[in-house]
Amino acid sequence: MIRQPYLLFLGDAADSLAAKVAQGIRDWRPDAAIGQYRMPGCNADVGLEDMSIEAAREAGARTLVIGVANRGGFIPDAWRSVLVKALDAGLDIASGLHNLLCDEPDLVARAGAKGCRLHDVRIPSVSYPIANGQKRRGRRCLGVGTDVSVGKMYTALAMDREMRRRGMKSTFRATGQTGILITGDGVPLDAVIADFMAGSIEYISPENDEDHWDLIEGQGSLFHASYSGVTLALIHGAQPDALVLCHDPARSEMRGLPGYRLPSLPELGDVALRMARMVNPACQLAAVSVNTKSLGDDEARACVAAVEAETRLTTTDPFRFGAGRLVDALPE
Amino acid sequence: MIRQPYLLFLGDAADSLAAKVAQGIRDWRPDAAIGQYRMPGCNADVGLEDMSIEAAREAGARTLVIGVANRGGFIPDAWRSVLVKALDAGLDIASGLHNLLCDEPDLVARAGAKGCRLHDVRIPSVSYPIANGQKRRGRRCLGVGTDVSVGKMYTALAMDREMRRRGMKSTFRATGQTGILITGDGVPLDAVIADFMAGSIEYISPENDEDHWDLIEGQGSLFHASYSGVTLALIHGAQPDALVLCHDPARSEMRGLPGYRLPSLPELGDVALRMARMVNPACQLAAVSVNTKSLGDDEARACVAAVEAETRLTTTDPFRFGAGRLVDALPE
Repeated sequence: MIRQPYLLFLGDAADSLAAKVAQGIRDWRPDAAIGQYRMPGCNADVGLEDMSIEAAREAGARTLVIGVANRGGFIPDAWRSVLVKALDAGLDIASGLHNLLCDEPDLVARAGAKGCRLHDVRIPSVSYPIANGQKRRGRRCLGVGTDVSVGKMYTALAMDREMRRRGMKSTFRATGQTGILITGDGVPLDAVIADFMAGSIEYISPENDEDHWDLIEGQGSLFHASYSGVTLALIHGAQPDALVLCHDPARSEMRGLPGYRLPSLPELGDVALRMARMVNPACQLAAVSVNTKSLGDDEARACVAAVEAETRLTTTDPFRFGAGRLVDALPE
Repeated sequence: MIRQPYLLFLGDAADSLAAKVAQGIRDWRPDAAIGQYRMPGCNADVGLEDMSIEAAREAGARTLVIGVANRGGFIPDAWRSVLVKALDAGLDIASGLHNLLCDEPDLVARAGAKGCRLHDVRIPSVSYPIANGQKRRGRRCLGVGTDVSVGKMYTALAMDREMRRRGMKSTFRATGQTGILITGDGVPLDAVIADFMAGSIEYISPENDEDHWDLIEGQGSLFHASYSGVTLALIHGAQPDALVLCHDPARSEMRGLPGYRLPSLPELGDVALRMARMVNPACQLAAVSVNTKSLGDDEARACVAAVEAETRLTTTDPFRFGAGRLVDALPE
C-alpha cells in the first residue's frame, strides 16, 4: 500500500497529457491528494493547491507521487533535487516510470537513511502464488476490450464510484501502473512472470462479502497478438461474474498491429464469455462501455444507440453519461 | 545455445523417473550425449557409457547437463564436488533446477576463473521483444492440450524426428526447461515476463524457408485456469498453420485444479482454432495425439479409433505407433 495523502509531482510537464497520471488521481481519488508540486516551465495544472515540499509535509502528505511522464528514459537532474528534498522531509516516493527509483543509488541511500519507502509500481513487489482456480465469495466485474487502451480502467473506476455513491460495497482493483498510483495498491500485471499472472489476480481480488463487487481493471485484449495472454490470465484469475465489453469506435485497426482488424463487439463478447465460463459458468455479459471522446454529443448518442442495437446489451459512455446504466445492468 | 556434446549427470537419482531429463536427451537427441556420470547409489541408467569427468572431457564433451531432479530444493554437497570438478576440467554446466547455478557463489567463481558458462534454463537469458504480430515465412505446427502435461513436447519431438527421417526441413522449438535441455536452445516460456511472452515465441520461431516446419512445443492449456495465459500467448506468438490436439484419456480432471473437468477434444479444437485464426486465418486442425501410456495395446488401438470417430481428425499415439500419420495429416 502506498501511504496517503499524496503530494502530486507534476515536474516540468510539457502539457496536461504528460501529467495524466496526476490527473487520474485527481479525477478518481480527489481525497487522496492534498497538493501539487510544479517546477518552473510546468504547463500542467490539475487544480490542486501548489505546495512546497515543506508545506505538503506540514499539511500531512505521506507520499510524493510522480504524476508526470519523463522523457528520454531517465530521471532528469532537475527532478532529482526535488525527490531528494522530499525524502529528506520524510515523504515516501511512488513512481510508475520505466526507469526505477530503486536503480538510483542516491535516492536509495537517502530513503534508507530517512526510513522512507520507494515504490516502483512498474514492477511487482509481491511473490504471487500460482492460481488455484478455487471459487471465492464475493462478486467480480471485469472489463474486456476489442483492443488495448480503449477505456477499461476508466470504466471500472466509474462503476466503482457509482456503486459507492449508491452505498453499495465495491472496490476498484488495479492491474496496471496508472491504476496502482491512482488507488495506492494493485498488481502491475504486464510485469508479472508468466506462471503467476492468474495467481496475482486471485491474490488482489480475495474472498469478500457476498454482496461486495470487485471492479477489476482490464488489460490488453484477447484479440491482440502482443498481449492476449495477459488478458486470458486476467479472465481466469478474476473468475468474473460479469463482463463489460469496452470499445473505442474511432479505432480502425489494432493498436501497434498494422493490418489487424478489431473484432466486432458480438465476436468479443462470444469469445470472452466462453473463456470466462471455463472458470465461472454463471458469468454474464452485462453491458458495453464505449469511449466516445472522439465524437460530438449527438454523434456519441447515436453511437451508443447503434451499439446497443447491434449487441442487445445496455450501452453507454460512462465518462460522458455516467456509469449508472452499467451498474444497473450487472446481474443480480 | 548450450554447447554439445553433453555428459549427462545422473547424480544419485533414486529411480529412472528422477532422471527423465537425461532420458529425454537420450531418447530424442542420441547424438548429443557421449556418456553418463553416475554417483554411488544412482538407480538410473540411460544406457550410455559411464564416464569420469576427465574421460568425458577427453572424448570431447563440452557441457555437463544436470539430467536429474534434486530433492529439497538445494544442490546437494555430494553433487557440488562433481560440478566443481566439471568446471575445473573446462566443461560448461546446464541445469533446469529451480535453484539456480548462478546463485551458487562457488560455482560462479569457478566458472568465471575457468571461462566456463553456467546455463540456468529455468530463467530466460534473452531480452525478448514485444510481439509484432507480423506474418513470417515458413510453416509452424503447435500442440495444444486438453490439460497440462498430456504429451505435447513428445508429440512435437516425434513429429520433428519423423520429418527429418523423411528428409523434410523441420526444427523442434523448445518452450520449456526439459525441451531446452534436450535440444540446447529455446525459451522457458513460463518464466518470461507477461508482456514479452508472445514476442519470445516470435523470437524463437523466426522466418524460415517456405517449406520448413517449426514444431513448436506446446505449454499449459487454454482451459487451465493457472496457465491459460501462457498458452494463448504461445498460440498468438506462434501463428500456427496447423494445430495438433493433445490428450491423455486417463486424466479425469484438470491437473492441480480439483473439480475442473477437461474439455472434450471438439471443444478444445473449436476454441484453439478460433484463437489461432486471429493471427493466422489459414490455420487448420491437423490431427489428434493421444497419450495411451496408461492403456494396453488393444485398449490403445480402441482409444485411437474412438477419438478419430469423435473428432473426425487423424488420430494416433506417436510414442506408441509412430508420428507418421500426424505428419501425413499436416496441411499442404
